Amino acid sequence: MTTKKVLILMGSDSDLTIMQKAAEALKKFEISFDMHIASAHRTPEKVRLLAKSAREKGYLVIISGAGMAAHLSGVVAAHTTLPVIGVPLASGSFGGSDALLATVQMPPGIPVGCVGVGAPGAYNAGLLAVAIIATSESQLAAKLADYRKELVDKVEEKDAALQRQQ
Amino acid sequence: MTTKKVLILMGSDSDLTIMQKAAEALKKFEISFDMHIASAHRTPEKVRLLAKSAREKGYLVIISGAGMAAHLSGVVAAHTTLPVIGVPLASGSFGGSDALLATVQMPPGIPVGCVGVGAPGAYNAGLLAVAIIATSESQLAAKLADYRKELVDKVEEKDAALQRQQ
Amino acid sequence: MTTKKVLILMGSDSDLTIMQKAAEALKKFEISFDMHIASAHRTPEKVRLLAKSAREKGYLVIISGAGMAAHLSGVVAAHTTLPVIGVPLASGSFGGSDALLATVQMPPGIPVGCVGVGAPGAYNAGLLAVAIIATSESQLAAKLADYRKELVDKVEEKDAALQRQQ
Amino acid sequence: MTTKKVLILMGSDSDLTIMQKAAEALKKFEISFDMHIASAHRTPEKVRLLAKSAREKGYLVIISGAGMAAHLSGVVAAHTTLPVIGVPLASGSFGGSDALLATVQMPPGIPVGCVGVGAPGAYNAGLLAVAIIATSESQLAAKLADYRKELVDKVEEKDAALQRQQ
Amino acid sequence: MTTKKVLILMGSDSDLTIMQKAAEALKKFEISFDMHIASAHRTPEKVRLLAKSAREKGYLVIISGAGMAAHLSGVVAAHTTLPVIGVPLASGSFGGSDALLATVQMPPGIPVGCVGVGAPGAYNAGLLAVAIIATSESQLAAKLADYRKELVDKVEEKDAALQRQQ
Amino acid sequence: MTTKKVLILMGSDSDLTIMQKAAEALKKFEISFDMHIASAHRTPEKVRLLAKSAREKGYLVIISGAGMAAHLSGVVAAHTTLPVIGVPLASGSFGGSDALLATVQMPPGIPVGCVGVGAPGAYNAGLLAVAIIATSESQLAAKLADYRKELVDKVEEKDAALQRQQ
Amino acid sequence: MTTKKVLILMGSDSDLTIMQKAAEALKKFEISFDMHIASAHRTPEKVRLLAKSAREKGYLVIISGAGMAAHLSGVVAAHTTLPVIGVPLASGSFGGSDALLATVQMPPGIPVGCVGVGAPGAYNAGLLAVAIIATSESQLAAKLADYRKELVDKVEEKDAALQRQQ
Amino acid sequence: MTTKKVLILMGSDSDLTIMQKAAEALKKFEISFDMHIASAHRTPEKVRLLAKSAREKGYLVIISGAGMAAHLSGVVAAHTTLPVIGVPLASGSFGGSDALLATVQMPPGIPVGCVGVGAPGAYNAGLLAVAIIATSESQLAAKLADYRKELVDKVEEKDAALQRQQ
Repeated sequence: MTTKKVLILMGSDSDLTIMQKAAEALKKFEISFDMHIASAHRTPEKVRLLAKSAREKGYLVIISGAGMAAHLSGVVAAHTTLPVIGVPLASGSFGGSDALLATVQMPPGIPVGCVGVGAPGAYNAGLLAVAIIATSESQLAAKLADYRKELVDKVEEKDAALQRQQ
Repeated sequence: MTTKKVLILMGSDSDLTIMQKAAEALKKFEISFDMHIASAHRTPEKVRLLAKSAREKGYLVIISGAGMAAHLSGVVAAHTTLPVIGVPLASGSFGGSDALLATVQMPPGIPVGCVGVGAPGAYNAGLLAVAIIATSESQLAAKLADYRKELVDKVEEKDAALQRQQ
Repeated sequence: MTTKKVLILMGSDSDLTIMQKAAEALKKFEISFDMHIASAHRTPEKVRLLAKSAREKGYLVIISGAGMAAHLSGVVAAHTTLPVIGVPLASGSFGGSDALLATVQMPPGIPVGCVGVGAPGAYNAGLLAVAIIATSESQLAAKLADYRKELVDKVEEKDAALQRQQ
Repeated sequence: MTTKKVLILMGSDSDLTIMQKAAEALKKFEISFDMHIASAHRTPEKVRLLAKSAREKGYLVIISGAGMAAHLSGVVAAHTTLPVIGVPLASGSFGGSDALLATVQMPPGIPVGCVGVGAPGAYNAGLLAVAIIATSESQLAAKLADYRKELVDKVEEKDAALQRQQ
Repeated sequence: MTTKKVLILMGSDSDLTIMQKAAEALKKFEISFDMHIASAHRTPEKVRLLAKSAREKGYLVIISGAGMAAHLSGVVAAHTTLPVIGVPLASGSFGGSDALLATVQMPPGIPVGCVGVGAPGAYNAGLLAVAIIATSESQLAAKLADYRKELVDKVEEKDAALQRQQ
Repeated sequence: MTTKKVLILMGSDSDLTIMQKAAEALKKFEISFDMHIASAHRTPEKVRLLAKSAREKGYLVIISGAGMAAHLSGVVAAHTTLPVIGVPLASGSFGGSDALLATVQMPPGIPVGCVGVGAPGAYNAGLLAVAIIATSESQLAAKLADYRKELVDKVEEKDAALQRQQ
Repeated sequence: MTTKKVLILMGSDSDLTIMQKAAEALKKFEISFDMHIASAHRTPEKVRLLAKSAREKGYLVIISGAGMAAHLSGVVAAHTTLPVIGVPLASGSFGGSDALLATVQMPPGIPVGCVGVGAPGAYNAGLLAVAIIATSESQLAAKLADYRKELVDKVEEKDAALQRQQ
Repeated sequence: MTTKKVLILMGSDSDLTIMQKAAEALKKFEISFDMHIASAHRTPEKVRLLAKSAREKGYLVIISGAGMAAHLSGVVAAHTTLPVIGVPLASGSFGGSDALLATVQMPPGIPVGCVGVGAPGAYNAGLLAVAIIATSESQLAAKLADYRKELVDKVEEKDAALQRQQ
């Protein structure tokens, strides 16, 4: 039994740098998480067990990232009814368009919420997990509102710098 | 103040047939919802107000569907910290690939959970909203598990029919 | 225990018309087969069991066809070391390019031999299964050579008709 | 109240190098402009206010550049009836095709004039703004004609160099 | 010498139905226009003369629509310094993506403001021409503002109908 | 007469680095092979003779890799009834999507089993050849099962390292 | 020994309707031709012999049309040094983009002159063959000039009709 | 009046390195040529005059290369009835797919023979021009046959080196 709220899965250790962006977003909001390497193709039993046991272990959301024929998110979603957020990763020569289509085009019945390709998507996957958890934790919603103000402030600072520069 | 849990938005009344698939999924799980036509481009103030007031009105999740340069989900996400599920719709000549990219490729900071293009995506958007709400409603999680069994049964029935047919 | 040589799987009964092209090719060469509907997403346990038991049941080749985020072939390949032939099917709005990428772009370690999208691909999947079985059945190789002659004859007949027509 | 004629907006400070090409074109024709960083997603209120007030502040044209799910131009166009020129920027892994589709595929009613991806597009956005302003300033039209002669001269010089080189 | 304000060109009479959407938008705002069929490839001299003489004939804006390797807008832009709005049309098997790229990806120096593919784009081309002319005609700006209110009203009516229907 | 089991062909010596991944997979399973450079376009007679004589020389499977308008696999398949595994290679500016389509989209009658683009595909081509040969060599099937366990162990090691690292 | 000038090849009788557009263009200029169905994949020997003997039979140009993994033009070009004009045909679900890439992306050394997809391309293939033959037949060049005048006249007629209609 | 046989045009001096591949192929066959920089957009009159006068100046074939919205080949073809070979060049972020579509998708009536993107295409453009000229110069046909033998020899040498290496 975990007390962690989010389970982050990735298909390969080469995905770690990107998927740590999801972890970074969760840490910012002090959301606990576990992170595992588990390939839908090379370790299907591991993925199946992690997905099947996720709800009873107490996780609220699963984030999964994979590249190429990115089956990880769909396979995870097939084995759990928790919300699954899929992160398509760019590897190989199609810039992640293969992973995007393989993650987002799920058949009716088994949903995956897909974010953008690569690092921006991974970070947003973390934020979306926070937003999901915030549906039942009101202080978290307040923190999300504060974060949005930070975003505004950063843009305003950069715009102010641009104005000085002109 | 609403007591509805999900807000469904669509950019045009021509999107209604498809977006009703989201409503259908919610009804199956007895999740209450409101549904509005609100275009990010033609009625930006309406979209802004709907998105900004969504949390205080009590909605837990927003589902938004649009076609072409599908800005609706991103604009909604810009004005709320609720989880936003985007449904790319196929209209015009690119089969929805324009709407998919315009929905899924959000910059870091403002997440949208994107589902597949068109009707399968719309239905899954409803299911994903249910899964999100189920993170804090355990009977709903049980219903989701039952639904998965129904899916299995339907496939098994069709496979059995195929076996008889051979 | 089956005495069938090929296992044909498809993700949905809506794929049946196309996947019967694979069956048609096998019948032409009198190769026995079983055919099942089994969805990687809706019936993951069924797919897993079918794939895991395929070798011991005596199958020599698995043909699997699916559309959209077509994970079926990859999931099957993850659970068997038999040769897996994937058939990407066109459903939804991307003409099967989603299914093609989701089938062909497998990570190193778990191979899928992918054929073309839709009916031509399904028929070729059947022929490729025959060619694989023919690696250890020499009469089958002779039949394949005869089939090629038939193809030549058909083209020659059509060309002759065209010459008469001019 | 500004006396500037063109408002240049960009979604992020990382877009500055490219968007300065638009500024460069304006400077060449001595067209005054203001330039701001304003994200449609992170600072929606800022974008809204900039767009809504643009006409009364005296701007004649708005140029806006953004990458990925590039909603900036569409959101600006939704809040103003001034001509909006959108510049799709290449960031992330799709070479700007996401930004192109998200900028150009506007629904009927809210036009955006989209230019090419990246630096060539940004420079052309500046020139198109000049051409628009020149519809009511005849000396500017004369300057544009001179500029075209410069372009001819530059090509002729390069061609002459090539002839000498052969 | 014309007193017309907009010149609409199209590459083929088969483009007429779509390009009349541009005319429709202009008529709504009582903007006078001429409309010609002129192919960049089959009638290059005609296109050249129409473009070269457009400014002196008094046109303020040129709208040009073409399909496939859509060179019309670029060729027109090469022969005039008036603002050129390009409308990519879908003909043949690529859904207009060929025409889009051939219209939007202009090299630096010769700008084309490209709108969306097909009818929505053609209508928006008319509106963008109105917006350009409105930069020096303030009553026209007022009419554009009214038009936006109409758009809002239409969406509100449709939303109200949807509410009654639920 | 060879006693080799697999024939590896590639269209150019520049493909060698990638195609050696196929050889590497075969070596791991102690499957003998020959490897030749033979271009479908520059040396069509060589390709034809290699393909036509492959079965009588004792090869069981042909692996062929080519880039751009990758005709090699299709031409080989046209001249043999052995199973042909095509490897699309990325050269030039389309990241291998040209080679993928030119390899996978075979017309009905002449099958090619296509793997992913580039190195992962080449390695999988080797593994797929092993799987094909294993349909009649049971010890090879056992080795394939062992290999899968190795894959699991490697992922588990990497996951364990990640757990220590956190 | 033929006295025909152009050899038209197509991969399948289903390509006949489109490829007759090439014949139509040749007939208009009274260029003699032969037309054959010959599949690069199903009848490789036929294609090889037709291509290898084409020059000695007196043909000056070869036009070849095929769909999907369209290898016909490349295979023909591999067996002849006559100019080969390739026509990519749209069959299956990718609208001919597969055939386009498989026809146009030839490796250095073996050129194919590719025209547009489908009927417009097939007609242009005929015209390009005429232009090639006209490099050594001056009356043919005069006829081509006349044909261009016809094209102008047709556009002018249609434009005149449009003017009357307005 | 020139005695040169081929006219090579390119849209920009930045295209020179690639377009010299066409010159290289012509030099190998001792075919005389002129080479000019002439932009369809920046120097439309120059392109028009070069194209219109090409036949009377004695050129037999025109090769033209351009990137992005590559109108050069189509504009040249519009002003001449000589055979035009188009070379799509990769510049900007779409890897030349924009230039490919803008070059190959010509409307019926005005043919362009398009070769592959970039250097391989440019070289093949030169070879195709040689093949066209060879339709009326039999010694050139013999040289082309010799060149093909060279290609075979080179591949054989590389294959022999590979055999020694194994």
